[in-house]
Amino acid sequence: MKDDCIFCKLANGVFETNKIYEDEDFTVILDAGPATKGHALILPKEHYANIYEIEEEMAGKAFKLAKKMAAHMTEKLECDGFNIVQNNGEAAGQTVFHFHMHLIPRYRGDGAFIQWKPTEPEAEAQKELCSFLKY
Amino acid sequence: MKDDCIFCKLANGVFETNKIYEDEDFTVILDAGPATKGHALILPKEHYANIYEIEEEMAGKAFKLAKKMAAHMTEKLECDGFNIVQNNGEAAGQTVFHFHMHLIPRYRGDGAFIQWKPTEPEAEAQKELCSFLKY
Repeated sequence: MKDDCIFCKLANGVFETNKIYEDEDFTVILDAGPATKGHALILPKEHYANIYEIEEEMAGKAFKLAKKMAAHMTEKLECDGFNIVQNNGEAAGQTVFHFHMHLIPRYRGDGAFIQWKPTEPEAEAQKELCSFLKY
Repeated sequence: MKDDCIFCKLANGVFETNKIYEDEDFTVILDAGPATKGHALILPKEHYANIYEIEEEMAGKAFKLAKKMAAHMTEKLECDGFNIVQNNGEAAGQTVFHFHMHLIPRYRGDGAFIQWKPTEPEAEAQKELCSFLKY
C-alpha cells in the first residue's frame, strides 16, 4: 500500500466503499461519480500508478475480471452496451494515480460517453507512421 | 474467420493494413480514422463479437498486449498519456462487431477524448445498487 494513495485505501478496505466484488488481487467498487447507473472501478490491491507500472500477469488478470464483471453486470442491469476504459496520465484524463479500469454500463440514448472525432490523416503519413511504430 | 467481417479480414491479412505488430493471436493496426496520432487497434485473429464472446484466456492476452504496446508506443511517440478503450454494443459506440481494443496515445491539450460527466447519485441509492450488484 502506498501511504498517500486513496485507491490503495479503497481497494484494501481501509475506507468503506460500495464494493461489488473482491478476490485476492482486486476489489471492484461503484464509482462515486458514475457516468451511468452501475459504473464501477476495478482496483488492484497492490499499488501500480498506471499501465506502465502494473505487472504483466496482473494486467491480464484485470481484463479477465473485466470480462467476468461485464457479463455479470449486463445481466443484472439489463444494459444495452458496455464500455471498458483505462486511462493513463493526466493528459489522458487519469485523476487518481493508482491503476484502475472503468466498467461503464450503457443504456440506449444515455448520451453518457462522448466518443472522439475521427481525423482523416493522409495515406502517406499513415504509412510512414506505421513504419516508425513497427514493433 | 467470419465471412462478412471486415476486421477478420484486416486481422488475418486478407486486406492490406498499416500493421504495427503481429503475433499468433493478434494483429495491431493503425486506426483508419484516428482520434490522435498513433491511434491503433488490437484485433484478435479469431472472430469474437465483443467482450461477452471472447475467451477468457484471450481477453487476458489482449490486455497484456495493450500494456506492451502502450509502453512501446509511448516511448516512440513521446506522448503524454494513453487511453485504452474497449466498446461493446452499438449503445456503447461499437461500430464493427469484432472485438477490438483502442490504443489512443494522448498529447497535452489535444482535446481528443471527451470524458463523461460524473453524476451525483444519492448515497442510499448507491448502497441499494451495491447490494443488487454484489457478485
